[in-house]
Amino acid sequence: MTIDKTIDLAEITGAFRDLQDRICSELETLDGSGTRFLEDKWERHGGGGGRTRVFPGGTVMEKGGVNFSHVHGPMPKNISAKLGFEAGQYFHATGVSIVIHPFHPLVPIIHMNVRYFEIENGTHWFGGGIDVTPAYVFRDQAVRFHRLMKDVCDESDPGYYLKFKEWADRYFYLNHRKETRGIGGIFFDHLKDEKAKNWEFVKRVGNSFVPAYTDLVNTNRDKPFGEKEKSWQLLRRSRYVEFNLVYDKGTKFGLDTDGRTESILMSMPPIARWEYNYQPEVGSKEAETLSLLKPVNWLEL
Amino acid sequence: MTIDKTIDLAEITGAFRDLQDRICSELETLDGSGTRFLEDKWERHGGGGGRTRVFPGGTVMEKGGVNFSHVHGPMPKNISAKLGFEAGQYFHATGVSIVIHPFHPLVPIIHMNVRYFEIENGTHWFGGGIDVTPAYVFRDQAVRFHRLMKDVCDESDPGYYLKFKEWADRYFYLNHRKETRGIGGIFFDHLKDEKAKNWEFVKRVGNSFVPAYTDLVNTNRDKPFGEKEKSWQLLRRSRYVEFNLVYDKGTKFGLDTDGRTESILMSMPPIARWEYNYQPEVGSKEAETLSLLKPVNWLEL
Repeated sequence: MTIDKTIDLAEITGAFRDLQDRICSELETLDGSGTRFLEDKWERHGGGGGRTRVFPGGTVMEKGGVNFSHVHGPMPKNISAKLGFEAGQYFHATGVSIVIHPFHPLVPIIHMNVRYFEIENGTHWFGGGIDVTPAYVFRDQAVRFHRLMKDVCDESDPGYYLKFKEWADRYFYLNHRKETRGIGGIFFDHLKDEKAKNWEFVKRVGNSFVPAYTDLVNTNRDKPFGEKEKSWQLLRRSRYVEFNLVYDKGTKFGLDTDGRTESILMSMPPIARWEYNYQPEVGSKEAETLSLLKPVNWLEL
Repeated sequence: MTIDKTIDLAEITGAFRDLQDRICSELETLDGSGTRFLEDKWERHGGGGGRTRVFPGGTVMEKGGVNFSHVHGPMPKNISAKLGFEAGQYFHATGVSIVIHPFHPLVPIIHMNVRYFEIENGTHWFGGGIDVTPAYVFRDQAVRFHRLMKDVCDESDPGYYLKFKEWADRYFYLNHRKETRGIGGIFFDHLKDEKAKNWEFVKRVGNSFVPAYTDLVNTNRDKPFGEKEKSWQLLRRSRYVEFNLVYDKGTKFGLDTDGRTESILMSMPPIARWEYNYQPEVGSKEAETLSLLKPVNWLEL
């Protein structure tokens, strides 16, 4: 088996860098405050590195990270053991990873990731997805977001949306809370076959991020809110912390393999709150949101 | 091998319940606001249960938990697999676990745990420890705290302090931050031999909690502080969150084995803050604290 060279690594890393550039620029416009992303370039000891871009707080976005990385070299033992490959083989891993924490409690947290992995033995795959974590779930917005994800999927494969939507429901699940992280989205990994088709798919996922988030931001950014909504948002952010530190495979992989901690943990919220055994009032918006933190067939397929 | 019946389970669980009662009462006095711990009794599906006591916020303590539990029954597969025992054997696990998050940024977070485990095949052991996590490290206070821990240890065994102090340094370590959780303390586990001696030791550890914390509280509670100290405290609390969710074996064990989530995560701070790549000013108190978050031979032994 050899690597399918019809799409070479340079094309993929180039497209990912370009995606990072475009998304940062479009998010700055969406935020509208004139605040710019700050960039930290970093190098990996064993080969490669990345461009971490962090948004220090503007009008919409309180804290955001849009990271590009391309790391490569002989596969360290701790990585190969986790992936089930022989150590020492030359590998490349590249991707763009985004988490945005908004100020406004009615604007959801959003996460996007697209990634590509290749090993000299010929194994290569794509992974990624987009998912949304609102402090307050609005059904119509969830439906619109999932409709967009379905359109993005359908253009590549009519079987993708349902498969990747259910994968997200399983993946973004806090077993100790018995709740999903949010309204889900799509998640996929180890897409090994049909490289050309899946590369087009991954690019489309990347390009759908800004339109998806723009709708969620602009629908909610001017709605009034008070202390109650803000307090609930901070509480819900603590579940985001719990998911990322307890379950998220990317975070664990990064921390276990001595990745750049500040880039990995850019996903953490600016402020989070824990309150012992908080139970929202029966019939409240907060209780309604909790009741929707389970796999929901938003598009009634 | 049979269980050493010179100290029976009823004596241990009784002493742990009593320890919880005394500590809660003494902490309420130390806080001085008149606020009382709230109790939730809970039952475990497979047998046993606990008394979770949570402090909802007073003068000194912003959020605190003092938990007693005694769970028992045939060992579930997920627990036996983790401990390396045959599933189905009858086991008992009991202990008291405490975490206090103070308002005042110069008063440290403190954690204490004493526990006992026994299996019908005759295996039984004690574990526990006390450790302190200041947002600002003061050398003289660290020395006094470690001196107290050494006195507690020395009364049982002249070899215990150094062994258990070094164990705490290894255990309370955030590898991804390359820093210890705080100034350490003592940590021990699987004390299987000399049951009578170690039971006396464990009781002494439990009884040293309030004196240890009282010194740390009363030395700092009236010191002035401002926004800068409060902001740094919230940032340091995020490292506490990271330790507990990424590394702490008790937390992982509890979450993996479907323990009572709200009792396990009572250790979370009321509010925590993450800031990308924050670097304290050279020569500042904050930078000095960071420089001390490593194994330090406080008593110069």
